[in-house]
Amino acid sequence: MGTRQMMQKLNKALSRYGNFHPSPLSLKKLLDFGRSKNACEKKSFTFLRQELPVRLANIMKEINLLPDTLLKMPSVELVQSWYIQSLTEILHFENKSPSDSAIIENFRQTLTWLYFLLSDDEQMRKTLTDFTETLYNIRKRHSNVVETMAQGVIELRDTHGIDHQTDSNIQYFLDRFYMSRISIRMLIHQHVLLFSPTQETHPRHVGSIDPNCEVESVVLDAYENAKFLCDQYYLASPELDLVSHNGIKKSSPITVVYVPSHLYHMLFELFKNAMRAIVEYHGTAALDYPKVKCQVSLGKEDLTIKISDQGGGIPKSAMDVLFNYMYSTAPQPPKSGSTTAPLAGYGYGLPLSRLYAKYFQGDLQLVSQEGYGTDALIWLKALSSEANELLPVFNTTSSRHYGTNIPTSDWSSPYTPRGSQNSVRTFLTFRI
Amino acid sequence: MGTRQMMQKLNKALSRYGNFHPSPLSLKKLLDFGRSKNACEKKSFTFLRQELPVRLANIMKEINLLPDTLLKMPSVELVQSWYIQSLTEILHFENKSPSDSAIIENFRQTLTWLYFLLSDDEQMRKTLTDFTETLYNIRKRHSNVVETMAQGVIELRDTHGIDHQTDSNIQYFLDRFYMSRISIRMLIHQHVLLFSPTQETHPRHVGSIDPNCEVESVVLDAYENAKFLCDQYYLASPELDLVSHNGIKKSSPITVVYVPSHLYHMLFELFKNAMRAIVEYHGTAALDYPKVKCQVSLGKEDLTIKISDQGGGIPKSAMDVLFNYMYSTAPQPPKSGSTTAPLAGYGYGLPLSRLYAKYFQGDLQLVSQEGYGTDALIWLKALSSEANELLPVFNTTSSRHYGTNIPTSDWSSPYTPRGSQNSVRTFLTFRI
Repeated sequence: MGTRQMMQKLNKALSRYGNFHPSPLSLKKLLDFGRSKNACEKKSFTFLRQELPVRLANIMKEINLLPDTLLKMPSVELVQSWYIQSLTEILHFENKSPSDSAIIENFRQTLTWLYFLLSDDEQMRKTLTDFTETLYNIRKRHSNVVETMAQGVIELRDTHGIDHQTDSNIQYFLDRFYMSRISIRMLIHQHVLLFSPTQETHPRHVGSIDPNCEVESVVLDAYENAKFLCDQYYLASPELDLVSHNGIKKSSPITVVYVPSHLYHMLFELFKNAMRAIVEYHGTAALDYPKVKCQVSLGKEDLTIKISDQGGGIPKSAMDVLFNYMYSTAPQPPKSGSTTAPLAGYGYGLPLSRLYAKYFQGDLQLVSQEGYGTDALIWLKALSSEANELLPVFNTTSSRHYGTNIPTSDWSSPYTPRGSQNSVRTFLTFRI
Repeated sequence: MGTRQMMQKLNKALSRYGNFHPSPLSLKKLLDFGRSKNACEKKSFTFLRQELPVRLANIMKEINLLPDTLLKMPSVELVQSWYIQSLTEILHFENKSPSDSAIIENFRQTLTWLYFLLSDDEQMRKTLTDFTETLYNIRKRHSNVVETMAQGVIELRDTHGIDHQTDSNIQYFLDRFYMSRISIRMLIHQHVLLFSPTQETHPRHVGSIDPNCEVESVVLDAYENAKFLCDQYYLASPELDLVSHNGIKKSSPITVVYVPSHLYHMLFELFKNAMRAIVEYHGTAALDYPKVKCQVSLGKEDLTIKISDQGGGIPKSAMDVLFNYMYSTAPQPPKSGSTTAPLAGYGYGLPLSRLYAKYFQGDLQLVSQEGYGTDALIWLKALSSEANELLPVFNTTSSRHYGTNIPTSDWSSPYTPRGSQNSVRTFLTFRI
């Protein structure tokens, strides 16, 4: 197929799949689905070859609304090329039914003539295997999307500067873009873990989901690893004081259906921040440090994890900035022999961790008492049936967002009672 | 003047003063102004006869944008009549300069012929005294505005029902309306306390402002009074554990320039909620209760007060509702022999307390761990020069608000990343 023909096909697919809304899955659905393993590879294939293009198209249509200047930055073009490539690859499976031999016509374009020598069953097997491999490769291709997109924003800042309006659009976009990415990777990873014979998973886990994720042990893991980095960097680290309150079944360990790697990601970030604050506030020469406190609580709806430090706190006016991509240190693409400070902090860690929490209808917040310390809280849905994916939807509301100007404040100061916690406070200037 | 003539004059004033933006004052300005007492009654008069009509007109123009159905509710008409009456009364002083004898013409309309027998100095004195008295009466007239406006909303709900859009508009409006009221009452009270010979104030205070407000002692006051109510209602109450962390000057008591009555209002509300949660969660028959913890911290920018209870917490999904006027129990106009439960809670207490906190650029938040307990935090500006009044401004943004529909969610669920913490979650239905 020529490039022009390919672009036509792609545009058609974009507008077709972009008109569908993504279908959010709950952790319960993902779990139930993954447990009936033998029956479901075909089902998963049929679902994903429709759902993945829908999620890709929804976010690709939104990318197209970004300012032209940003779209032309080399790193952003690179990211776009990955999305185009991956969408195209999945579209190859569009009309292939693993139990329908009318697929042959379509197959001819991508597979070798050997295919015709296979039986129906073997053809089906081959399609499924190819699909899983394609997904595996897509996931690998998109490994550095966060860093590369961040790089693109830096390129824009360095060449054109970024005004308040653009900054607000970028914050809105990146929250949606990274959330879309989390969701696509989750679906792909789940399929690959379940159906690729070469992938090894924890015997208790269903794909990446732990049906009995012991929160305390993820907390301990995250603490130990953060402590290791802290010791390495400061030659000292605060101890942990971990308490649980099971409000449903007293003194039972608190478990939840969750993706342990997501939970670990958030906790590791929060422990790094807490430890750094403590050691820097009390000085590296201090003989001992106040402990990092961690409290895990379980209620009917919420599982809450609170990490409290006595690290001097942060003024309230600086809170929003911690979650703002433009004011944060952009993550660097991995280099061999990287010299990034291990506890650098205030990078993308916090806004990304918040996205992970929100992805399954949870949340992440910081509340700080300047002069004393900070509490970081993670809320997860206690019930897997309520832990529905939170997905960006491309519609008039979202597209209008990129066009409209930030309205004049209707209060006598930057405070916006109906505004966003994400939005940048107007009194801040850029550190270009 | 005939009614029609009066209405014309009023409309002219509304559009004239409504075009000005309110001038926010900081606690520092209010304090400095109040301290140079002897020189400033004239200044205060000159400022207020302009500023009060501006603040009144700004919010009155916004009242006019409310749905017609709401405007026609008897209680709303009553509130409006108070605003019209008070604006008219202040406008009488529009062209009166206390040191300008050209005032006489204007005066004739409102004062007796005796006025002409007074000397210039005496006339000036009379004008100032009349002004202060007028303000005093206005403040008295508006005492029950909160309850009466709340009553109006109930009338609307009972006669017409309230849809999601109207609820969202009412939430937006009431936050602004009550904030405007707080600010107007503050200015009036300040003037009356400073310049009325019959008003007694604390010798250390400047009007209603305490230049050295000892936070711990206001905390103790609020705790003791909440405890009294709690004991009366439950025959039991939790103890208090109060700690301070002065991050600026270790082990000095924490003081701040503030209006102690505002701080008391917030703390009393939070202590009532905390105590009720503790006693109800652990049962009235419990032998002892976990203490209410209160932590006061001071940093360079913020003074933070955290009240923590182990009262079982609140699910995150119920958080927004606590600050929603429509879902809260509307406060009742005071009746003799009122039988309202003293610890009823979840009335307007929380949203109003948050307005008090925000009024001088602070904030109030709840974070809860369901199955364990709740932290309530108040942030105040540590520096009086940063404690600027936060005032609603009538402009295109605010007026557009009442006309536009709530946009479709651009996420796959009611979560709105750029939406308001105040906004009602779409999945909630009305308790009509």
